[in-house]
Amino acid sequence: MKAHLTRRYQFSASHRLHSEHFDERQNREIYGKCNNPHGHGHNYKLEVTVSGEPNPETGMVCNLADLDSFVEREIMLNLQFSNLNEVEIFRNKVPTTENLSRELFHLLREQFRLAKVEKVRIEETMMNSFEYAGGRELGAL
Amino acid sequence: MKAHLTRRYQFSASHRLHSEHFDERQNREIYGKCNNPHGHGHNYKLEVTVSGEPNPETGMVCNLADLDSFVEREIMLNLQFSNLNEVEIFRNKVPTTENLSRELFHLLREQFRLAKVEKVRIEETMMNSFEYAGGRELGAL
Amino acid sequence: MKAHLTRRYQFSASHRLHSEHFDERQNREIYGKCNNPHGHGHNYKLEVTVSGEPNPETGMVCNLADLDSFVEREIMLNLQFSNLNEVEIFRNKVPTTENLSRELFHLLREQFRLAKVEKVRIEETMMNSFEYAGGRELGAL
Amino acid sequence: MKAHLTRRYQFSASHRLHSEHFDERQNREIYGKCNNPHGHGHNYKLEVTVSGEPNPETGMVCNLADLDSFVEREIMLNLQFSNLNEVEIFRNKVPTTENLSRELFHLLREQFRLAKVEKVRIEETMMNSFEYAGGRELGAL
Amino acid sequence: MKAHLTRRYQFSASHRLHSEHFDERQNREIYGKCNNPHGHGHNYKLEVTVSGEPNPETGMVCNLADLDSFVEREIMLNLQFSNLNEVEIFRNKVPTTENLSRELFHLLREQFRLAKVEKVRIEETMMNSFEYAGGRELGAL
Amino acid sequence: MKAHLTRRYQFSASHRLHSEHFDERQNREIYGKCNNPHGHGHNYKLEVTVSGEPNPETGMVCNLADLDSFVEREIMLNLQFSNLNEVEIFRNKVPTTENLSRELFHLLREQFRLAKVEKVRIEETMMNSFEYAGGRELGAL
Repeated sequence: MKAHLTRRYQFSASHRLHSEHFDERQNREIYGKCNNPHGHGHNYKLEVTVSGEPNPETGMVCNLADLDSFVEREIMLNLQFSNLNEVEIFRNKVPTTENLSRELFHLLREQFRLAKVEKVRIEETMMNSFEYAGGRELGAL
Repeated sequence: MKAHLTRRYQFSASHRLHSEHFDERQNREIYGKCNNPHGHGHNYKLEVTVSGEPNPETGMVCNLADLDSFVEREIMLNLQFSNLNEVEIFRNKVPTTENLSRELFHLLREQFRLAKVEKVRIEETMMNSFEYAGGRELGAL
Repeated sequence: MKAHLTRRYQFSASHRLHSEHFDERQNREIYGKCNNPHGHGHNYKLEVTVSGEPNPETGMVCNLADLDSFVEREIMLNLQFSNLNEVEIFRNKVPTTENLSRELFHLLREQFRLAKVEKVRIEETMMNSFEYAGGRELGAL
Repeated sequence: MKAHLTRRYQFSASHRLHSEHFDERQNREIYGKCNNPHGHGHNYKLEVTVSGEPNPETGMVCNLADLDSFVEREIMLNLQFSNLNEVEIFRNKVPTTENLSRELFHLLREQFRLAKVEKVRIEETMMNSFEYAGGRELGAL
Repeated sequence: MKAHLTRRYQFSASHRLHSEHFDERQNREIYGKCNNPHGHGHNYKLEVTVSGEPNPETGMVCNLADLDSFVEREIMLNLQFSNLNEVEIFRNKVPTTENLSRELFHLLREQFRLAKVEKVRIEETMMNSFEYAGGRELGAL
Repeated sequence: MKAHLTRRYQFSASHRLHSEHFDERQNREIYGKCNNPHGHGHNYKLEVTVSGEPNPETGMVCNLADLDSFVEREIMLNLQFSNLNEVEIFRNKVPTTENLSRELFHLLREQFRLAKVEKVRIEETMMNSFEYAGGRELGAL
């Protein structure tokens, strides 16, 4: 049995979907209007899920204040009101929300040490969401 | 590790819960007001979850435009503004949302070929939701 | 200055848009798929707004328990899990949500005596809502 | 007494807040991170409210299909997946959501002829919304 | 014509509805379970609406950063994670949400000087909300 | 493959985070403003998930009326409009939402016999949620 805690954050950013692997026409076909040269944007909702047993003394899986300050410092400062195409992690990657979820999952899983990061979920719009989750075979971490 | 993409659709439909396995009084006891002879309706929210690794060139698990056109053609055309009791898949089944989730899961899992369909979730009202998900043993697909 | 209190209720019902003023083809043109012979349905959200000065002793504009029992008895019992086309108030009217708002506004305004009913708002879907509100000239009530 | 119908639309766009009336430092002070040179974006929710008496034959204030096709053609085609700073109406104006509401209100009020447009409301984020509404003195329209 | 800007804030607090004008039995009758001696609580959503013409140079009705810092300092510091019965403004008043709306409306209207405060709306639960709005007769301000 | 049904309930309650394992200063450091002596409160959203195969005759995983009456009698009567610190299950435990999820999961898993309880999820605020779920090894139950 397991307890999970999910914390939700929000940030507004823009992006343009365009891949260097394809020519103009292919980019247009694959990404449609999301390939518009001037970009467009979203209010992203980021959910971070950590797991663990509630500490018998504090009753908490992990102190939300610690998770908040980590996310604020390592993620929000870079992404809030940003253009994702200009952000370091997308130097060589298309800033799809799939890729964004994966990058944020790895960053959190590897660097946040106060609880086990299980999942990152990002809502791009009310109609689309993306999750990235670690499996059991992840043993090494 | 795995990436999941969830896409949300909506449709409005009516249904009447009534099973041929029971007599009038039993139907009334089991389904309560949902057994009213004239039916009632809902705004159903349908969520389809597919999984896969983001394609390294496109950064996408699957092109949403492909999923949308499949769902539009195979599901929405039949269910939007419909009476579920009259829809082909409920010819011999009570149109509960449990059964609706299962039918849509099988339809999607077997016929949508561009990503692995992992789960169908349907919100019947803000207070009730139903999921149908495939397990690992599903190997054959 | 004025205080307003809004209370939200929900009910699930079906309807079919079809007017006796038009022939088959016209009904189809005007109402589109909402004219389907078997009807379809919605989760309606009903909001009732009353106004007044907060009572200096109770601090309340009107006791929510009184509003709830009125709405339960006079509205919910008839509409919850109903087919609107079969409900008394739609005997001679098309059960559009415009008409439903107007009928419920008049019922509440004329019969609920413990606060002034100012507005009825009904959300038919997340994308459509309808309001009916009384003006100042309403003096006679 | 009056009936109002509100229809909700959504679009994703980016913008950068920057005014030619100010120098670099002033722009930074006034708009904060929203002045970032590469812009950022939002999922805008647009609500259009029209008023009128429900037509006694159709039971409708105005046919939603007509409002939808107007908004699709005159607004959505320009704004969906756009960069607002590049859109014609913001050639000489800062693309704040206040200005966007005002521009869309005037466009709708002056050109949509099938019902009286009363209000435009835009949610920029879950935390901010903007409305532009015409008053009684608007007689000339 | 008029532009309105609405900003949403949230705080969590507890309260107990109990009036010194009534005896034990009456309090129980009037407030029901909300009169429980140990209190209960809510996640309150506070919406502040201000009006004005968008400034032609900045494109803004009022700088959100100014409104935020006023609300943070004058309201949030007192109410976030508080017991409303212990807060100064409820020394002699029952902490109903009607009274809370009125108190916050007056505080904002009289002390926030950078735009005209038109309305305060508080959602107590998803089912109840309360508004307090100033009328035209408010001339003195 | 498996069907899941999730039912949502709501209740309003207050709590104060304070552990007897720590002194005043430590409690303040660990729980911040949530340690305020007078407590604060939330609108908790409780989601109960059960699993099973839809019954071939009724089309239902479990009758919602049965689940509702169990939750009403065993959970809601105690928690609705309560102060969690005064509730029996928190006699020796800090009423964090982690602990609340765990207690409710065990109560439901052990005492509700009409379907398998898989998960309890509680939203404390729009920004925080907590889940407690049983694993496969739970065989003994």
